[in-house]
Amino acid sequence: MVAINCDMGESYGLYSMGDDKAMMPLISLANVACGFHGSDPNHMHDTVRLAKASNVKVGAHPSLPDLQGFGRREMKMEREELANILIYQIGALMGFLKAEDMELNHIKPHGALYGMASREEHIAHAICDAADIYKVPLLGMVNTLHEKVYQERGHTFIAEYYADLFYRDDGGLIITRQHDPVDPEEAGIRALRAIEEGKTKGTGGGDVVVRADCICVHSDTPNAVEVAHAVREAVKPYLADAA
Amino acid sequence: MVAINCDMGESYGLYSMGDDKAMMPLISLANVACGFHGSDPNHMHDTVRLAKASNVKVGAHPSLPDLQGFGRREMKMEREELANILIYQIGALMGFLKAEDMELNHIKPHGALYGMASREEHIAHAICDAADIYKVPLLGMVNTLHEKVYQERGHTFIAEYYADLFYRDDGGLIITRQHDPVDPEEAGIRALRAIEEGKTKGTGGGDVVVRADCICVHSDTPNAVEVAHAVREAVKPYLADAA
Amino acid sequence: MVAINCDMGESYGLYSMGDDKAMMPLISLANVACGFHGSDPNHMHDTVRLAKASNVKVGAHPSLPDLQGFGRREMKMEREELANILIYQIGALMGFLKAEDMELNHIKPHGALYGMASREEHIAHAICDAADIYKVPLLGMVNTLHEKVYQERGHTFIAEYYADLFYRDDGGLIITRQHDPVDPEEAGIRALRAIEEGKTKGTGGGDVVVRADCICVHSDTPNAVEVAHAVREAVKPYLADAA
Amino acid sequence: MVAINCDMGESYGLYSMGDDKAMMPLISLANVACGFHGSDPNHMHDTVRLAKASNVKVGAHPSLPDLQGFGRREMKMEREELANILIYQIGALMGFLKAEDMELNHIKPHGALYGMASREEHIAHAICDAADIYKVPLLGMVNTLHEKVYQERGHTFIAEYYADLFYRDDGGLIITRQHDPVDPEEAGIRALRAIEEGKTKGTGGGDVVVRADCICVHSDTPNAVEVAHAVREAVKPYLADAA
Repeated sequence: MVAINCDMGESYGLYSMGDDKAMMPLISLANVACGFHGSDPNHMHDTVRLAKASNVKVGAHPSLPDLQGFGRREMKMEREELANILIYQIGALMGFLKAEDMELNHIKPHGALYGMASREEHIAHAICDAADIYKVPLLGMVNTLHEKVYQERGHTFIAEYYADLFYRDDGGLIITRQHDPVDPEEAGIRALRAIEEGKTKGTGGGDVVVRADCICVHSDTPNAVEVAHAVREAVKPYLADAA
Repeated sequence: MVAINCDMGESYGLYSMGDDKAMMPLISLANVACGFHGSDPNHMHDTVRLAKASNVKVGAHPSLPDLQGFGRREMKMEREELANILIYQIGALMGFLKAEDMELNHIKPHGALYGMASREEHIAHAICDAADIYKVPLLGMVNTLHEKVYQERGHTFIAEYYADLFYRDDGGLIITRQHDPVDPEEAGIRALRAIEEGKTKGTGGGDVVVRADCICVHSDTPNAVEVAHAVREAVKPYLADAA
Repeated sequence: MVAINCDMGESYGLYSMGDDKAMMPLISLANVACGFHGSDPNHMHDTVRLAKASNVKVGAHPSLPDLQGFGRREMKMEREELANILIYQIGALMGFLKAEDMELNHIKPHGALYGMASREEHIAHAICDAADIYKVPLLGMVNTLHEKVYQERGHTFIAEYYADLFYRDDGGLIITRQHDPVDPEEAGIRALRAIEEGKTKGTGGGDVVVRADCICVHSDTPNAVEVAHAVREAVKPYLADAA
Repeated sequence: MVAINCDMGESYGLYSMGDDKAMMPLISLANVACGFHGSDPNHMHDTVRLAKASNVKVGAHPSLPDLQGFGRREMKMEREELANILIYQIGALMGFLKAEDMELNHIKPHGALYGMASREEHIAHAICDAADIYKVPLLGMVNTLHEKVYQERGHTFIAEYYADLFYRDDGGLIITRQHDPVDPEEAGIRALRAIEEGKTKGTGGGDVVVRADCICVHSDTPNAVEVAHAVREAVKPYLADAA
């Protein structure tokens, strides 16, 4: 069985990001921004309420402290200061979960932090240091340094496949600061293949080994709702939460 | 029995505020800043650890979002957005308490927010909205609007007396953006009288009715450690945590 | 002759606010956000370039320091600290004007600050303190405290009429945190009447005396471009920059 | 002739950093923080006034946007966004210089940015892009990538020698997030030798080639005032501004 996850609650003040109301019914897990790359206390509370109303589980989506860069600029961080930044953000989200009588389901680092955790060991350890406290699974990509560290540290690892991003032949994700539209049907086909075959086509033409315990779709892709619909339809037989 | 409380953990990055290491052994309750007027994840974690090492209970000291103004400039806030800001900050602190296996003991609003809660009913209600979730007592001043609202909403109210600030004859506190040094001996005498007689001398010469379930001392008074020492000595017979 | 002004450059990082590209050709004066309620260095530079390309003059649109509240929450400020905040923001904008070889044309305070300047004398004076340095006209509303102070301090005062907001019968503007759509045709009719008769209909039914040296339209009204088009058409005979 | 420069105005809100009042009379050039790693509009204005009173020239000391990390954490920045960040900060400082009728004297990048400009070509170019607009000299270290780029781009380059930091044998500076106290007398001796011989002892024991058009001392070294005194005495015969 697989789940569909999506980064949610990334609006800030009067600024909108993503159509959370349209996306929420299409997903199983919401990775909720915690105010350091997007979101603020109002949007966090609203997003947690929206998830609850759609029976969607909530995970924390903490970030480097970089609102202007939307958490997509790498910063040099020491292990302890990063762990503290994560404990802070996840705790803040826990407040809204407590208010709505919900549990924290998982942690998924955001943006540049996600990538750094696949290259820098102390970053992956800092994420584990925070997860040690909250004791929930960590989302990530197979065959990366972060998977290795999360596993060694004894954390439950949930492998996700990105249906709306492209993979290099070496398995790396191609991440841009702003997302381009993707073909919904193809995204669905890729997601299904990732689940059934554990493979995806790399940009160089070769096959890349992936694992899809979970399919990730983004809400800030220009045609995000359409993509999420198509992916959901394509992987329906495998969805844990499908009727 | 009374306790001594102090605002702690207000340093930020490389910037220092208050001598927390010297103050911690002199107090019973630490009101820990949550990053909106002072503090950051590193200082919050360090302060929680320091409190634990000194057997001091930790409360949340949340603020208006105004780091540059140290939370001492009033802002017009709606009830719901303020409640969310408080839930966020207190939740963040809870993360560090969880990390150190401690419990949240109380909530004390900081600076301008504290004063606003004694004048604006919706502000006092927003504080209660946050306290409803965390279910801990609220610190405040007797004979104020905030006491009235906290009581009506069913929250445990802990009345504090400010040993290092001055009271107007109408009972209002004289608060400045930066604190001036105070005479340690007189602060001790005032604290003792507040406990024993429930009275303090107003700046106009009249007696003001106060209540001192708790004595507050500030760590950013220039001679803060000296004042805290003197107050502690003066009220020792009444201290719940005195050996 | 009149001009049309609009608040521009209020996007922030990946967050969009208003369709500046569509609005710019319809206006004569751009009030460019300076990073304290909206905008950031990238958006400021882009907006200045866009204004230059459309032959639009650039004024500063400085704000209280409140990005999350979009500068629409009042804050208690002292005159000197506010003057410094304004000098900072206007100076920052001057950097981008210097880069594009343009001049600063005017200053128009944003949001809550604009309203505060019509009620609190020291706020209006702080704005003059900043304008003394940059020596450009100030935009505002007739028959307000800020008009009085600006005039007394010897600043050139440009009276603006809000084509897309409503006036109370006492002359006060009805300002909401988010703008509702307005009828474009009616906005045009109101703008024209304001210019020709110096009057507008208040929400209570009475006529309000106004002055329209300048017509203001907002870019974050849901149908902003349509409204700006209609207003421009309606007041064309009076436009200084119309072909 | 040489000058002594010092980073100034790094206090923030109620937080103090460095004893600017004691340092200002000892230096010739103040590198004034612009609010992104330290300082705020009040401290910037005060610092500019203080410099004026001591007849000290003012340069801009812009930074990466990282107040919590005091600009000492590297961030991945693109050339254009960095240039815009610098234009913004320097422009803001220019506002206070205009207020006090002073000129901008130079630009010196702060902290991590200074180091990045000696390793990443696009960072050095972004600094030049900003300097192109303000047309003032750039401070830096000889035999670095940034010197090369600044020279190639036609900027006046002022080589500085750090009297209170240590050099590796390869010429690199040893920079820590917080500065340790240094021996004042030795700092003076090192500064004099840098001026007279163009050499300094590396931490490995070898001699490093340096150039000292300018001696830099830090205000956040614990014994900063003492060090500045000693350095000033030692290099007095070479000081352009010495009586």
